[in-house]
Amino acid sequence: MSEVDQALALLSRGTHEILVEDELRKKLESGRKLRIKAGFDPTAPDLHLGHSVLLTKMRQFQELGHTVIFLIGDFTGRIGDPTGKNVTRKPLTEADVKANAETYKEQVFKILDPEKTEVRFNAEWFGEMGAAKMIELAAQSTVARMLERDDFEKRYKANQSIAIHEFLYPLVQGYDSVALEADVELGGTDQKFNLLMGREIQKHFGQEPQVVITMPLLEGLDGVQKMSKSLGNYVGVDESPGSMFNKLVSMPDSLMWRYFELLSLKSNEELDTIKQSVEQGANPRDIKMELARELIARYHGDEAAANAHKSAGNQLADGELPEDLPEVEVDFEGGEAPIASVLTRAGLTKNSAQAKDMLKNGSVKVDGEAVAPSTMLATNNAYVIQAGKKRYARVSLK
Amino acid sequence: MSEVDQALALLSRGTHEILVEDELRKKLESGRKLRIKAGFDPTAPDLHLGHSVLLTKMRQFQELGHTVIFLIGDFTGRIGDPTGKNVTRKPLTEADVKANAETYKEQVFKILDPEKTEVRFNAEWFGEMGAAKMIELAAQSTVARMLERDDFEKRYKANQSIAIHEFLYPLVQGYDSVALEADVELGGTDQKFNLLMGREIQKHFGQEPQVVITMPLLEGLDGVQKMSKSLGNYVGVDESPGSMFNKLVSMPDSLMWRYFELLSLKSNEELDTIKQSVEQGANPRDIKMELARELIARYHGDEAAANAHKSAGNQLADGELPEDLPEVEVDFEGGEAPIASVLTRAGLTKNSAQAKDMLKNGSVKVDGEAVAPSTMLATNNAYVIQAGKKRYARVSLK
Repeated sequence: MSEVDQALALLSRGTHEILVEDELRKKLESGRKLRIKAGFDPTAPDLHLGHSVLLTKMRQFQELGHTVIFLIGDFTGRIGDPTGKNVTRKPLTEADVKANAETYKEQVFKILDPEKTEVRFNAEWFGEMGAAKMIELAAQSTVARMLERDDFEKRYKANQSIAIHEFLYPLVQGYDSVALEADVELGGTDQKFNLLMGREIQKHFGQEPQVVITMPLLEGLDGVQKMSKSLGNYVGVDESPGSMFNKLVSMPDSLMWRYFELLSLKSNEELDTIKQSVEQGANPRDIKMELARELIARYHGDEAAANAHKSAGNQLADGELPEDLPEVEVDFEGGEAPIASVLTRAGLTKNSAQAKDMLKNGSVKVDGEAVAPSTMLATNNAYVIQAGKKRYARVSLK
Repeated sequence: MSEVDQALALLSRGTHEILVEDELRKKLESGRKLRIKAGFDPTAPDLHLGHSVLLTKMRQFQELGHTVIFLIGDFTGRIGDPTGKNVTRKPLTEADVKANAETYKEQVFKILDPEKTEVRFNAEWFGEMGAAKMIELAAQSTVARMLERDDFEKRYKANQSIAIHEFLYPLVQGYDSVALEADVELGGTDQKFNLLMGREIQKHFGQEPQVVITMPLLEGLDGVQKMSKSLGNYVGVDESPGSMFNKLVSMPDSLMWRYFELLSLKSNEELDTIKQSVEQGANPRDIKMELARELIARYHGDEAAANAHKSAGNQLADGELPEDLPEVEVDFEGGEAPIASVLTRAGLTKNSAQAKDMLKNGSVKVDGEAVAPSTMLATNNAYVIQAGKKRYARVSLK
């Protein structure tokens, strides 16, 4: 497999669509350092792993030597909602934008290589653009074309109003590609229309059109709906190592390859090796632990990743952890630990009989979830265990 | 009738629509010097009487003490056609705009009072407007609203493309009213949509909305189609006094009141008096001559107006006047002149028999039109008379 073929194989992994793949091949063959653009909202970032799909793809480009442009769309953010109808979309101040950009940088440089990243703001070119140029830009597309965009079409047909400036925003995003001389633009599948607009605008301004790569939305931990804070099926990038570990290791097996594909920086060859190991009988839980370690290392460092399994139980799922939580260590010599024994040996129940009673009537919770009397806990792990309403402890099993 | 009632009666004469008349009354009652806006294209002006309908209405406002703003839309003119598809709509240079503005001024100050006129160019405010403000402006209307405009609706339904910037132009025109703080905007009936947009934009920017007055298109001399150079039914404002006279005096009687209403600066009372005179038996031709004199005086001065009837025949209708046209004067002592006698006495035919022959076979033309043998020519007038293909003369009859 040629170097370009190999690059293409990696870069197309997990993508939804590449438009046009042949053009991407030619750009890769040119040997030039390509400019890879992705745009982000300047509103306060509250990132979860779903957002990192794009960043992971950007990082893959960087591994191949290309330059990534992390574009913050502050120009439109600072306009706010000019219809004045949407009070929640207030114009951002320059200070807001700066603060949000700093938060972004903190997070994104956990994935991106700062040496190969340009952080740019589109007010840089739009701030000094005149109304005349904006009109010229507006001339580059048509009403019919805009109404082809899914959301516009739906709103138009449903007689929901579309303000004229909403037609300008795809053009603004397209012009960003001109200003940045982008070779490739990455975005979610919902961004396809706007990304393609960039190609049109670049052509008008005499540039070679960018290749458009759309990435799918990452499924949440339920494996069904897209990852989203409001759906509760997410892993936040600022979650503790233990919490990340717990969530990632407990995802359905069916989801793990998807997460590997979209979030891991392992090569395709490494992934193939891992897949083969599962076919040959490896425990999927171990594979998920491997993924968890890679992702935790990214956000919290290698040491935290190595120890995450120990602190994984340190947090109640509902977050209601008492501040004065007693710490208890119980040694099962690396074997399996029946919950009833753990309760008594940790001092949470007086004896085995009380433990069994409480388990029977459902008043024992491990990491916030009621557990069955037959539950076995893995050793080399830590759990927050609750017996009744008042007795808690963080129990480390050896 | 109160002063304001009288003003309203004059100002509404000939209008197609006033939106909203009550608001106009209030503005007039305020006693303020109102700001009356009308916008004109910066392309080379080639004006005819049709264009003067608006100017005449503007002049009526001036007679009432108000200020007229003659706005030249150079901002959009200098953008040209940004789609690059329309080669005939090239961007105008600053020099083009200046030259055209001078031509305009020459013509329009024949109607408008320069002391009460501001000549403005909208590049004054749009030239320094930023892209962000243009986006804010674009937010002030919706796609559905724009597609209500007749021409947009037709094109959209016929799948003809509408470039996005075309949606910006009504907003640009609307913002002109903000920049100029217009109290009233005048325009053709085809401009109604854009004029009303001005009201919306003014409201958004905290101004009292302008009153919109639409004026009908002036019918051409045929009394059927709108006046237009390409239809040949026009009177150009730079035509010679004689030509104006000829055209105006020969219009159908049914048209003369319409022309009076829309083009004359006479008061409503004066018009009533003239109408009564016709009811009492005055010759409509005399009324048309009175109108012709008013209009000719406007473009060529009082003396030219007084003498226009004399030179009225000096031009062939088709414009093919030989350069070495002989001048002949024939005295009929103020009576009527039979065409056969005129021909012979002017030396265009050898004798009365030849004259009659030529008249019979239709080879005699007066001012470019073949005439019947029984034709009588009015004295105190001049005609270009042609007998056969080679014999011409400009004949003044006394």
